[in-house]
Amino acid sequence: MSTLAVIPGDGIGPEVMAEVLKVHAVVEDAFGTGLKTEVLPYSADWFLEHGDVEIDIPAIGRTYGAVLLGALGDPRIPDNRHAIRIIGGLRQQLELSVNLRPVRLRTLAHCPLKHVRDVGDVDLVVVRENTEDVYVGVGGTVRGGRPGHVAMEVGVHTRWAVDRALEAAFELARSRPRHRLTLVDKSNAMPSAGPLWQSRFRALAASYPDVACDHLYVDAAAMELIRNPARFDVVVASNLFGDILSDEASMLAGGLGVAPSASYDPEDTSFFGVFEAVHGSAPDIAGTGRANPLASVMSYSLMLDRMGLRAAHRAVERAVDEVLRGDLLTPDLGGTARTDEVGDLICRAI
Amino acid sequence: MSTLAVIPGDGIGPEVMAEVLKVHAVVEDAFGTGLKTEVLPYSADWFLEHGDVEIDIPAIGRTYGAVLLGALGDPRIPDNRHAIRIIGGLRQQLELSVNLRPVRLRTLAHCPLKHVRDVGDVDLVVVRENTEDVYVGVGGTVRGGRPGHVAMEVGVHTRWAVDRALEAAFELARSRPRHRLTLVDKSNAMPSAGPLWQSRFRALAASYPDVACDHLYVDAAAMELIRNPARFDVVVASNLFGDILSDEASMLAGGLGVAPSASYDPEDTSFFGVFEAVHGSAPDIAGTGRANPLASVMSYSLMLDRMGLRAAHRAVERAVDEVLRGDLLTPDLGGTARTDEVGDLICRAI
Ligand SMILES: CC(C)[C@H](C(=O)O)[C@@H](O)C(=O)O
Ligand SMILES: CC(C)[C@H](C(=O)O)[C@@H](O)C(=O)O
Repeated sequence: MSTLAVIPGDGIGPEVMAEVLKVHAVVEDAFGTGLKTEVLPYSADWFLEHGDVEIDIPAIGRTYGAVLLGALGDPRIPDNRHAIRIIGGLRQQLELSVNLRPVRLRTLAHCPLKHVRDVGDVDLVVVRENTEDVYVGVGGTVRGGRPGHVAMEVGVHTRWAVDRALEAAFELARSRPRHRLTLVDKSNAMPSAGPLWQSRFRALAASYPDVACDHLYVDAAAMELIRNPARFDVVVASNLFGDILSDEASMLAGGLGVAPSASYDPEDTSFFGVFEAVHGSAPDIAGTGRANPLASVMSYSLMLDRMGLRAAHRAVERAVDEVLRGDLLTPDLGGTARTDEVGDLICRAI
Repeated sequence: MSTLAVIPGDGIGPEVMAEVLKVHAVVEDAFGTGLKTEVLPYSADWFLEHGDVEIDIPAIGRTYGAVLLGALGDPRIPDNRHAIRIIGGLRQQLELSVNLRPVRLRTLAHCPLKHVRDVGDVDLVVVRENTEDVYVGVGGTVRGGRPGHVAMEVGVHTRWAVDRALEAAFELARSRPRHRLTLVDKSNAMPSAGPLWQSRFRALAASYPDVACDHLYVDAAAMELIRNPARFDVVVASNLFGDILSDEASMLAGGLGVAPSASYDPEDTSFFGVFEAVHGSAPDIAGTGRANPLASVMSYSLMLDRMGLRAAHRAVERAVDEVLRGDLLTPDLGGTARTDEVGDLICRAI
């Protein structure tokens, strides 16, 4: 029996997280998961009050079974440094090499593409390596702010982390009906990172003869997502490309209001990961009741799955599917429902 | 009176370039540009025959007024190294800092988005810095192929090249009706490159008070292109992000069959640049007459514009518009016309 750390966050974060906690209470009643929750205070307000202090991230990993992370981001903090510190800190210090971002269409009307005629045509998962690439913050500046200013940004890729992301992607592809995996990179313009990703992809492919593999350059992949999303099943990419492609892909199935994510260390059996909506804190609509709680509920559902709580996971998934096929929806999906009405509906549907 | 270097290239390159040369003959007759053409042999076949030899790129810059570059790419050459050598060599050795990639919808039916209801909603230009970022090939590998393999890929960004791209973008934004410029970067995850782009963007913005500026992270931009393409006028980005976003954006206006590009040194007044379709060599349809020659014709038209041959440029633009509003189109745009029929139609429309 473990405890979930809940970080409500900024902007729409807290109001959305309130719905997740309502859903969790219902799940608890129905399935008795034994998961307690504890709220951690990290938010823009907290950082503005306490200064830019270190957070003991390893302690979070040791203390809790998982983190439910609300949206972080506040216009008062340049480039949302506090968000990067928490999100990046959790991902990197806890070695959450795998970031899963499923994109699945439930209602044709939620897809903006004219040529998508079947909800099944948009059903993909982006597996993003989650700890390396340019996100390591390695680089430097020469003559900063002066005429000869040179900036260097270093993407670091290790076989260790690449393998962990690739293995998760191959396993996922194996477990899905289409058994298909697409590697996305820019090996034609990246002579160092390219060969590492390509060679490890080929090496692992040999152990997964049942998975159909292919490869796209990232520019072509950005295009193919629009041209023919049905061609994608599982997509694996480095941190930066995974970030871009998963945001783009989310638009094909209703947008960020229904884009969940799971970040985890595939080898850790006591800390199950960080589960967060892909969307940001949307300060412009905070407090208006317009925020869609589904992305966070779906992230919570990914947590249940990762913890092996299959019955609870399936119940939440069914509830989300039911809500998404109905018309009590928030404005981002063309409805007029409020955040808490959608949350209540999920609770009733479980 | 200068001479154009014509590189027909691989796959569909030569058949598409043949149409450009037909169009050029008509333009020559009508407007007397005085531009001669000379074919250069660089192609996959040439490289396979001659080996991976150096090409004297500076000599091309000194000898010709511009390069009309056909698609390069051949499955026999891994990662199309010959293409990178020519394309990358021209862009970097001739300091073609600016890569323009206009995306303009002419016919509603060519936009795959349900919510685009007016052709004017997709009319943007991506200005891509064209010589730096990860494309410099700087980086390295530790323990390659062994368990502790580490790859580092370095994106290099200099104020000199960034300023040239930004200036071109501001000038372009000023010249267009909406006067709008969006900087796309990933400053929240790139502590070295981010501040350079951001600070130079702000510095230049002060000299362009008539240009409305905004900023998006690259992941958000990839999403916004689908959600609301009408918000974009001119978009400026580093080499890698410009590559990804321009390919994605091209899908909103008919795809790569109508995606042209111009690469140039904004300060060079004798060599006007390299003009090439964004598409590749499409070996699968080479020789079938299915290739769309419009992207290359539109690239040729960008060359006329860059050379100040305004009347000729406007005539070709009008002809392209007319063809795109009609129904004699290649299969990529839903038609059944052949490459040469579309070329002939352009010639007649000029
Ligand atoms: C906040 C930002 C650094 C982050 C990222 O790029 O990883 C976000 O966009 C995400 O995808 O979770
Ligand atoms: C061939 C490749 C290296 C090139 C690039 O990425 O620049 C191409 O995709 C392009 O956009 O012209």
